[in-house]
Amino acid sequence: MAPNPAFDAIADADATAKRRPKNSLKGQQTKAAIVDAALGLATHIGLEGLSIGALAERMQMSKSGVFAHFGSREELQVSVVREYHVRFEDEVFFPAMKATRGLPRLRALFGNWIARTAVEIDQGCIYISGAIEFEDREGPVRDALVASMTLWLNALKRAVSQAKASGELSPETDEAQVTFEIHGLILTLHYQARFMRSTDALARAQTSFDHIMARYLPATRIQ
Amino acid sequence: MAPNPAFDAIADADATAKRRPKNSLKGQQTKAAIVDAALGLATHIGLEGLSIGALAERMQMSKSGVFAHFGSREELQVSVVREYHVRFEDEVFFPAMKATRGLPRLRALFGNWIARTAVEIDQGCIYISGAIEFEDREGPVRDALVASMTLWLNALKRAVSQAKASGELSPETDEAQVTFEIHGLILTLHYQARFMRSTDALARAQTSFDHIMARYLPATRIQ
Repeated sequence: MAPNPAFDAIADADATAKRRPKNSLKGQQTKAAIVDAALGLATHIGLEGLSIGALAERMQMSKSGVFAHFGSREELQVSVVREYHVRFEDEVFFPAMKATRGLPRLRALFGNWIARTAVEIDQGCIYISGAIEFEDREGPVRDALVASMTLWLNALKRAVSQAKASGELSPETDEAQVTFEIHGLILTLHYQARFMRSTDALARAQTSFDHIMARYLPATRIQ
Repeated sequence: MAPNPAFDAIADADATAKRRPKNSLKGQQTKAAIVDAALGLATHIGLEGLSIGALAERMQMSKSGVFAHFGSREELQVSVVREYHVRFEDEVFFPAMKATRGLPRLRALFGNWIARTAVEIDQGCIYISGAIEFEDREGPVRDALVASMTLWLNALKRAVSQAKASGELSPETDEAQVTFEIHGLILTLHYQARFMRSTDALARAQTSFDHIMARYLPATRIQ
């Protein structure tokens, strides 16, 4: 199934990287390995915790070796956000596109998102920690994070619109409001489960989703 | 009106401080001024951004002067969390206690919370940034943050219970679920307004609260 055009890759931050020498297959593999290690670090210690030095040590490379692939810490951070975005799409977005358009697809998007969030209770999530780190800092890292979240929330909103168009949700459904409320239950799940170590947050988040859906199911529909 | 016993001061972290010399009025005033400056810094740069050195510079004091009041950076951070807690109580909790027990008090608690969150869209909120900074770090700072959030969410839950007991909310109301959902709309408001700079997040959060209330208003009640 074709990817949804409004949720494909974010603006091409590779443009600068392409002007660099290391464009061989081996160079690309090394770069991918560095990004993978950086993403692993960033989910635990945050994007701002990343340093070329720490990463070089972890990769058993020289600092100048890592630097040759990224040029700056900021470029490394943007690459990490893009890689996170790609993985999020692969786990959450694309598999749900196989479900029938309308309520089944909306449920699949939510189901995949909550499943990923449940895994991230142990790992951290750079869409949540990054939002705090870059909330009042301008620049390409913040821009990449906002672009990524905006695309995702728009994809979710579109799925709500489609369920409304198919008559599976009532014509009064406010898709932006539904999207806001679903985002909220994911943020609370993360906060209460990861930070407060609440054991019932996952069940509460599922119930919240059912509440939101119940509000908009047409009166005649039997769940 | 007497303070609610379950939402009063968190465990006394002053115990160590009391063993220190600077217990004169002037010493206490200086300490309060340092905490005030530290809180101002922490809401912008996070609790982990605080350092005794930066604070000494801001206060035009020596590092050892600041150190004499706190002993460690961790103790300073805990004092900041406690001060934040006191201000949160003063702004959000105590004024709402003047409202009639039941739905009016619940609405007042929510109204004060959302008003404070709206102000923090420009400032940052240490209950949200602190949750990210300390999500997998053990110690007294994390403990103080969790204790504070737990007390507050319990106070909110109790207000929901009282509205259920008074018959203003339906007997089927699940107070823990309602509390989870209200927490969610505050987190989303902060995320979308502060990080994504959405202009309609405040209205969406208000609508979310109305949706939650509408679900539990007794069938016969006219809003």
